[in-house]
Amino acid sequence: MPEFRQELISGQWVIMATGRAKRPEAFARKGEYEVDHLELPGHVAKCPFCKGNEAMTPAEVLSLAKNGVSPAGKDWQVRVVPNKFPALVPGLKKTPNLETEGALYKEMNGYGVHEVLIETPEHNRHPGVLETEQMTLVVQSYLQRFRALAENRLLHYVQLFRNHGREAGASMEHPHSQLIAMPFVPVTVRQEIESAHRHYFTYRQCPYCFLLNEELRDGKRMVAENSTFCAFLPYAARYPFETWILPRRHQSSFLEITGDEMEGFSDILTLVLGRMARALDEPPYNYFLHCAPFRTTGLPHYHWHLELVPKLITVAGFEMGSGIFINVILPEEAALYLRKKGEAINEHTRKDFLYSGLAQPPAGR
Amino acid sequence: MPEFRQELISGQWVIMATGRAKRPEAFARKGEYEVDHLELPGHVAKCPFCKGNEAMTPAEVLSLAKNGVSPAGKDWQVRVVPNKFPALVPGLKKTPNLETEGALYKEMNGYGVHEVLIETPEHNRHPGVLETEQMTLVVQSYLQRFRALAENRLLHYVQLFRNHGREAGASMEHPHSQLIAMPFVPVTVRQEIESAHRHYFTYRQCPYCFLLNEELRDGKRMVAENSTFCAFLPYAARYPFETWILPRRHQSSFLEITGDEMEGFSDILTLVLGRMARALDEPPYNYFLHCAPFRTTGLPHYHWHLELVPKLITVAGFEMGSGIFINVILPEEAALYLRKKGEAINEHTRKDFLYSGLAQPPAGR
Repeated sequence: MPEFRQELISGQWVIMATGRAKRPEAFARKGEYEVDHLELPGHVAKCPFCKGNEAMTPAEVLSLAKNGVSPAGKDWQVRVVPNKFPALVPGLKKTPNLETEGALYKEMNGYGVHEVLIETPEHNRHPGVLETEQMTLVVQSYLQRFRALAENRLLHYVQLFRNHGREAGASMEHPHSQLIAMPFVPVTVRQEIESAHRHYFTYRQCPYCFLLNEELRDGKRMVAENSTFCAFLPYAARYPFETWILPRRHQSSFLEITGDEMEGFSDILTLVLGRMARALDEPPYNYFLHCAPFRTTGLPHYHWHLELVPKLITVAGFEMGSGIFINVILPEEAALYLRKKGEAINEHTRKDFLYSGLAQPPAGR
Repeated sequence: MPEFRQELISGQWVIMATGRAKRPEAFARKGEYEVDHLELPGHVAKCPFCKGNEAMTPAEVLSLAKNGVSPAGKDWQVRVVPNKFPALVPGLKKTPNLETEGALYKEMNGYGVHEVLIETPEHNRHPGVLETEQMTLVVQSYLQRFRALAENRLLHYVQLFRNHGREAGASMEHPHSQLIAMPFVPVTVRQEIESAHRHYFTYRQCPYCFLLNEELRDGKRMVAENSTFCAFLPYAARYPFETWILPRRHQSSFLEITGDEMEGFSDILTLVLGRMARALDEPPYNYFLHCAPFRTTGLPHYHWHLELVPKLITVAGFEMGSGIFINVILPEEAALYLRKKGEAINEHTRKDFLYSGLAQPPAGR
């Protein structure tokens, strides 16, 4: 029988349509994707993100060598450049202020920063098959750009995101993340913080800390954990295999992350993306980071996190119209499948992939 | 230069990324879609929605013959049946009430009604090439099902929607709409009504009536109009070619529509879908209806409407994370293109298609 589940923080209802349910295996669609990233070459002459093609991008704003040394010069491992076709631009003459066309039609200058974070010099090393060390450099570049952009008082939020695969909106094959910094707080984040705030005043606790402890205790929706982070499917997951990654220690902004936590974050991100890649045959996906706005650290009610959504369904008229998502696989089943199948090594996956013994849900925690 | 535009009712900002802009023609992608609906046969033996295959669906809840006579028997022109794989089901033993798993994990029975409205006995007569008379029968079936479902005191909202083409989430080729009736008001509609309410108390006017008059007066975002309805692209359109259709007379619920208005609605829907089909080469699309909940007619601040979104872009990490959409074509340019190119008759389109002389924007209104 179908059931409605309510997401604790947003209060939004999701339909768990178990009557239309699919087996978890049905979501693994090997060979159906436009590009098989595991079969790409390591270097592509025309790719502006490949090593040696640095002149094909705008001048870099950051580059990191091994061990995080910066600037890295030719031996870069991670490189951040302005997006060549930016959605927002920093060079406006006027500061962003409100204008109106007619009485109630409001507009502002498209002020902001749009950058591309090139995650590796190699064309085919996606996070699903990336070493944790390299991922730590990527996370370090995230943090350094957050810090630099937070200095600009005209910017109030940076939306970090990653599109993997054409079906998930990626126009470039080469592994990269993106960020768009903007002069206000986006609606999704504002609503999340407001809801968390209401919860905090009722229950005197951060709702994310509550969820994190519940999920660790219960274990059935867990995907992975380490000493500083955990990853689970939310109880009212909107999308099949939607996964959240949260720091264990309460912190409202990504800017509060410590050195140890950066390693923990890289470790769990590699682990979860690896499990997803193996269990669902390298699906396209999107991930994005939600955190407190700039100059708003230390909120007791909010908790930064990453949301990862493999692109397995088409959002259609019902979801667009109602805002209610229909999920055809229970998060408990999806999590079990990710824990079990995610462990299997297939021919494409590097043999030395890090496993942390989480094939079974942690019991009695 | 890019600009932010704010949607009057939701208050949400959209990025008009004119720096990444495409020519309107670039959105017409003939032959790229999985199915060319104009080249489908009129009858498919295995299609449960085709004439003669009535036994392949659950028993019908409504059927209409020409002139709207009901029940129609074998000569049906429109037929409504329960969805064979429903997202919500009406047969639960318990009424929908709140249960909890753990302290804050809330769930409800998946109570509701999920129906398919088969719009024509013919397999290949999509609204883009449908006669207005047939569309009027479709709209009549919408209204009759709204009326019948509103009698059920456990149901509070019905989400009517249409998915056209596989890329827009349609699993069946045969022309059909769907509805899902549910025991609460979905979040999108609630937020829209709340925002309209705030506007009403500030400005003492329905914001949709305001928009409608502004757009008719200005004309540059208009797509079509007749004596009872008008269709325009909203100032802060989230999607390329997103179009809204509103009744001219203020009415908060679709249940308030009159006989004349039903014809006007069918006329403008056929007109807009025809223009879209010709201008963009039969794109996949979604449309959905937003209206006041059941037993909530006569709201002075809300105005029912239909939102139509051709599937031309991939919603990716930035939009999912921030809720901010990046639109690469200004609604003014898209509307102009729809008015001009939408008039051209191509070989596939029936010759006698109704034109109402709207190739130019209405001036001085």
